[in-house]
Amino acid sequence: MTALKNDIFLKALLKQPTPRTPVWMMRQAGRYLPEYRQVREQAGSFMNLCTNPELACEVTLQPLRRFAFDAAILFSDILTIPDAMGLGLHFTEGEGPKFQNPLRSLADIQGLPIPDPTAELRYVVDAVALIRKNLQGSVPLIGFSGSPWTLATYMVEGGSSKSFQKVKSLMYEQPAAMHLLLDKLAQAVAAYLNAQIEAGAQAVMLFDTWGGVLTGEDYLEFSLRYAKQVRALLHTEVAGQTIPTILFTKGGGLWLEAMAETGYDALGLDWQTDIRQARVRVGQQVALQGNMDPITLYAQPDIIQAKVKHILTQYGTGPGHVFNLGHGILPDINPEHVKAMVDAVHNYSLAFHP
Amino acid sequence: MTALKNDIFLKALLKQPTPRTPVWMMRQAGRYLPEYRQVREQAGSFMNLCTNPELACEVTLQPLRRFAFDAAILFSDILTIPDAMGLGLHFTEGEGPKFQNPLRSLADIQGLPIPDPTAELRYVVDAVALIRKNLQGSVPLIGFSGSPWTLATYMVEGGSSKSFQKVKSLMYEQPAAMHLLLDKLAQAVAAYLNAQIEAGAQAVMLFDTWGGVLTGEDYLEFSLRYAKQVRALLHTEVAGQTIPTILFTKGGGLWLEAMAETGYDALGLDWQTDIRQARVRVGQQVALQGNMDPITLYAQPDIIQAKVKHILTQYGTGPGHVFNLGHGILPDINPEHVKAMVDAVHNYSLAFHP
Repeated sequence: MTALKNDIFLKALLKQPTPRTPVWMMRQAGRYLPEYRQVREQAGSFMNLCTNPELACEVTLQPLRRFAFDAAILFSDILTIPDAMGLGLHFTEGEGPKFQNPLRSLADIQGLPIPDPTAELRYVVDAVALIRKNLQGSVPLIGFSGSPWTLATYMVEGGSSKSFQKVKSLMYEQPAAMHLLLDKLAQAVAAYLNAQIEAGAQAVMLFDTWGGVLTGEDYLEFSLRYAKQVRALLHTEVAGQTIPTILFTKGGGLWLEAMAETGYDALGLDWQTDIRQARVRVGQQVALQGNMDPITLYAQPDIIQAKVKHILTQYGTGPGHVFNLGHGILPDINPEHVKAMVDAVHNYSLAFHP
Repeated sequence: MTALKNDIFLKALLKQPTPRTPVWMMRQAGRYLPEYRQVREQAGSFMNLCTNPELACEVTLQPLRRFAFDAAILFSDILTIPDAMGLGLHFTEGEGPKFQNPLRSLADIQGLPIPDPTAELRYVVDAVALIRKNLQGSVPLIGFSGSPWTLATYMVEGGSSKSFQKVKSLMYEQPAAMHLLLDKLAQAVAAYLNAQIEAGAQAVMLFDTWGGVLTGEDYLEFSLRYAKQVRALLHTEVAGQTIPTILFTKGGGLWLEAMAETGYDALGLDWQTDIRQARVRVGQQVALQGNMDPITLYAQPDIIQAKVKHILTQYGTGPGHVFNLGHGILPDINPEHVKAMVDAVHNYSLAFHP
């Protein structure tokens, strides 16, 4: 493997000193880039794009050609695991993901196989290896997975949801069935992330997109418990290199203290969470990643620059901050505005790393 | 006016001792009741129902005939104020509220009139008076309004939104225009609530449904500041009776300390916020209202009862708790399940008021 030329992202996750604050962006490979839309069109469908390692590699690398991001993130979907479990993932234009075979009963859950990532999810593992090779050590590669709870919401609802009625009803009425599902998912997620690590991922992130729809107690019991189980199963040292881990719960600002106790090296923050207060609350234990409101990127560059400066100031001096948005970039953002953000992080953050 | 026979809701909001915990439910007058759906059909449209004091009175009283709620809440819509400002509110089946004339520019905002509630919003004031009369002192009547920020989101977006791109862009790019709009709305909301109080509302609640989409700092500057302005303008003593006030920000669990400083008597809690922790954080200053997950009501009565008991236990002994859901009841809930919740609050809460 080529030596890593820019490791400030990995260092920041481990709270080691860096010359400036690293920056990347959730969904940085995506629809806001015309070159992405072109490859997506060639692929024919979103799933074709995800399952083709060459195309997944190409779109992963695209944002790095435009912007000075300090990390690449595997282009994939969080629903690859449920698909590999036999639920039949497909995407309907404008409607989001759907499963042909959503989970309806305890028997469905009992019958779920735990996929072998090197078989059913071979296309992801191959994409990771290919991206890592093509990065040529320029920046580290982030692998990722949806959290067990978040995957469970889609698997029980059959797709996206607003009220989460089906999955919460299962949780309230048949908690043992829910725990069985989440335990299987934790095993599947850990195996999947370990396969990504083995194939070349240099950091991994767990996306708990829907943890924030739970009560505090249910979050601990049905979401965080399984994020912790995943973490315990990860192989986070490869050839003497530590593989840092990031946990992101959208809407999890109330629960940072509990999240910081689970063994992840860093917590992702949504934009509602004040990063200054978050650092006071948990900054001794974990690094923090975030957290500009994605809507800020609609504003003119001077406003974006001011917001970047403000977030850097709020985090303050010293290591342990990775700049990011508080959620994924939206599809109709002007790429020039992304450039304004990245450049502002580079320029302004020097002052916070004396 | 008839003397109030059951004032435990008002007492709890003022943290005075009561024999048990009062209970009511957001959207208790609504679609989950067959008798509501019948009146709604008679009315022809949702706006016809809102603007007809007799029909609004009828649907307000319906849930009280079924359940032992300790308060009635005016049946109305939070968008009556923008409608009275000339934005042309209409409801499209399955699409939610829309404005014919959304705000597009500073000039639009400058031109906005502050409605006279006894003129353009006469139908609401008349409904309040009629409901108060028909309640015959059985339970107190709650008046309400959307918060300035929440009203502004609909007025700028032109209806409901997922990303709040337009209103946030206005906020980020033209903060002075946003402040002008919010100041006008604070005046309009205060006048509206004062008119409701004058007509007979015995408590008032401010619904900040969308405060939770803001960053912490923007919440303080663009939402809470104007909730506070409204509170300062309210006439909360009528003929020697205190009119308690409730502030509810959905997604506001991180900001309870700031909310508790604004002069409201009680804070509404969404279900994500742990009520035990909330009481520790702000229970010395304010009463707390909430906060069962509305999805719990899909579960069987024994599960509902257990959840009610759990929330009562979490709040603990002593005054200052009003039981409620953490958000509005959903339209397809079985009314028998509501009865299970209300009865459980009545039965179990006695033990917490020794």
